[in-house]
Amino acid sequence: MRNIDDLPIRDELKGKSPYGAPQLHVPVLLNTNENPYSLPDALVARIAERVAEAARDLNRYPDRDAIELRTALAGYLSASTGHAVSTEQVWAANGSNEIIQQLLQTFGGPGRTALGFAPTYQMHDLISRGTGTGWIEGPRNPDFTIDVVSAEAVLAADRPDVLFVCSPNNPTGTAVARETVERLYDAAQAVKPTLVIVDEAYVEFSHQPSLLPLLEGRPLLVVTRTMSKAFGAAGLRLGYLAAAPAVVDAVQLVRLPYHLSAVTQATALAALEFTDVLLGYVDRLKAERDRIVTELRALGLEVTDSDANFVQFGRFEDTHAVWQAILDQGVLVRDNGVPGRLRVTAGTPAENDAFLDAVRFALPSPAATLSTSRFARASSLENR
Amino acid sequence: MRNIDDLPIRDELKGKSPYGAPQLHVPVLLNTNENPYSLPDALVARIAERVAEAARDLNRYPDRDAIELRTALAGYLSASTGHAVSTEQVWAANGSNEIIQQLLQTFGGPGRTALGFAPTYQMHDLISRGTGTGWIEGPRNPDFTIDVVSAEAVLAADRPDVLFVCSPNNPTGTAVARETVERLYDAAQAVKPTLVIVDEAYVEFSHQPSLLPLLEGRPLLVVTRTMSKAFGAAGLRLGYLAAAPAVVDAVQLVRLPYHLSAVTQATALAALEFTDVLLGYVDRLKAERDRIVTELRALGLEVTDSDANFVQFGRFEDTHAVWQAILDQGVLVRDNGVPGRLRVTAGTPAENDAFLDAVRFALPSPAATLSTSRFARASSLENR
Repeated sequence: MRNIDDLPIRDELKGKSPYGAPQLHVPVLLNTNENPYSLPDALVARIAERVAEAARDLNRYPDRDAIELRTALAGYLSASTGHAVSTEQVWAANGSNEIIQQLLQTFGGPGRTALGFAPTYQMHDLISRGTGTGWIEGPRNPDFTIDVVSAEAVLAADRPDVLFVCSPNNPTGTAVARETVERLYDAAQAVKPTLVIVDEAYVEFSHQPSLLPLLEGRPLLVVTRTMSKAFGAAGLRLGYLAAAPAVVDAVQLVRLPYHLSAVTQATALAALEFTDVLLGYVDRLKAERDRIVTELRALGLEVTDSDANFVQFGRFEDTHAVWQAILDQGVLVRDNGVPGRLRVTAGTPAENDAFLDAVRFALPSPAATLSTSRFARASSLENR
Repeated sequence: MRNIDDLPIRDELKGKSPYGAPQLHVPVLLNTNENPYSLPDALVARIAERVAEAARDLNRYPDRDAIELRTALAGYLSASTGHAVSTEQVWAANGSNEIIQQLLQTFGGPGRTALGFAPTYQMHDLISRGTGTGWIEGPRNPDFTIDVVSAEAVLAADRPDVLFVCSPNNPTGTAVARETVERLYDAAQAVKPTLVIVDEAYVEFSHQPSLLPLLEGRPLLVVTRTMSKAFGAAGLRLGYLAAAPAVVDAVQLVRLPYHLSAVTQATALAALEFTDVLLGYVDRLKAERDRIVTELRALGLEVTDSDANFVQFGRFEDTHAVWQAILDQGVLVRDNGVPGRLRVTAGTPAENDAFLDAVRFALPSPAATLSTSRFARASSLENR
């Protein structure tokens, strides 16, 4: 019994591979939407200080309800959106993936379904399946925005129990208009009580404000967030949600007791003390993201409008060949499964220059005949 | 929509309460099997150092496969049991609860069942239900050992997909004999391929050696462990398993990507550097545990043999009244749902003295008439 498929694992897992981007060792890593800026020394020192304090009592279980952390997160959300959120409206877990898993264990599960608009964050699909929740793909417009009329028809026909709205959307970078979310929420509730999860993992990078104020008067709306991106803390694994207090009470029925370690809570609290510094990096990254969009378009590529810290670009006949050609220049981007497209994370100015140079090198010059290149330029697909 | 039950949560969650011991502020906390010894200063300093190192790159995702940590855990298991275990045989997660959840998502789930011998660790039941796995309770002897003949009959009749063997068992403290596990494993496999999970959360406190060497030649055996108890790190939330490499590969199909934070990995690695120091505390706690057993028996109570860092004692007509009377003396123990019994964690010598004094105070003197006491002495129930 040496292989997975010889074990009595669940049928739906047979032949599957673990989720995750390939981790390669190359000079420029722009494939997993990490923040390129290391934490400032003062914050590293503060983390060491708060963790040492927590470590002294590490023999004790952590605060099971993470009250201090949830209060700090509520404070951040209130201050940054202008919409007052209380501790009782906030819940935290090991990454927004665990938040989503807890929500699906509570509101999804066997015999229930979740709907998302593809292409979108792949973990919505995978965590749905992992919790026994059926997964339904709704459509997007060719520009990756959500068509409300089509969505309303899908909601009426498929009657999902959970609706995902990812804004800004991963991997396309597309923000969802406030009015669209309002209409989707109403359309879903008109069919049956539906938990609507607005995944705002990348919202701090958006040109438009957070959708958090929509919580007002919408008891089945949930906004999920993460400290992985804007707070530059992907290694911390701290995701959170804001919703009506009853939703927070409900996920506590399925959360594993003491799920959030004392060191995680201490580190997150330290990072939240440095909110202003960390959001300063966000401003730099937004400017760089806009520069990448502009420069890729100047190269004649088709680039999706982005409100995130990454940019989707194409279109290519053979995305894998382009991915490889860019990698050959020492820059790792993501082949994220959207036909004809690749996704690049906004890095430091130097990293982005390296990426843009790699693209220029990889793309044939406008004068070259397309047939001799290893891959076709974007324009070759634009009229399909 | 202000209450949980007004939300469209799953039917089986309606009316439920979150799992967890009441957290009260009293001088002596002996209710959650925590290790009473704070981490030594040198370890606290080392944690701060390793976390600071990790925090510098906190903007990057952690090592998704936690190779360094799994290697260190494999080294600890190999050295402490004399049975060589490789990195590929070890997997780590946020507490052994998450380990168990991942195992049940992989080998249990809807349409499948798990069996445990009640009374046992309540999370086996709760996580089974949380993953849609049916839960079956097998019997124990009156002394809380497992009767192999009865167990074989239950396995043949109920055909579970997953079998839990908790040794030492929580909340009774009962170790399971090696031969019993061998026979249970064979009996289960004779019916159908069955994952057998030996939960050794408390094994470092046992009078008998770990069952880890049983992994040899048993591809569907899993041994789960935690750093919460013997390593005095309940606040860290670090659970792990040892099994055949294929089982480790299999749980990676359901683990959330990057589930284990960089700070958790760094802190666990620091604690493992201090294994010898921490296991010194374990020796003290074993001696104290044995003293509690002896002294409670001297008071005429019925005390279950214990191989863990806690002791089950009774029997009482009204366990809640006894629990309250002990609490009134400033000592919190656990009313863990076993009829007529309570469970006390072995604390420091001073804490255990306080507990024993509280019990003496709470119990009527042998000369007193039982009818006037708020609760009956153990002997009153011994012949039931």
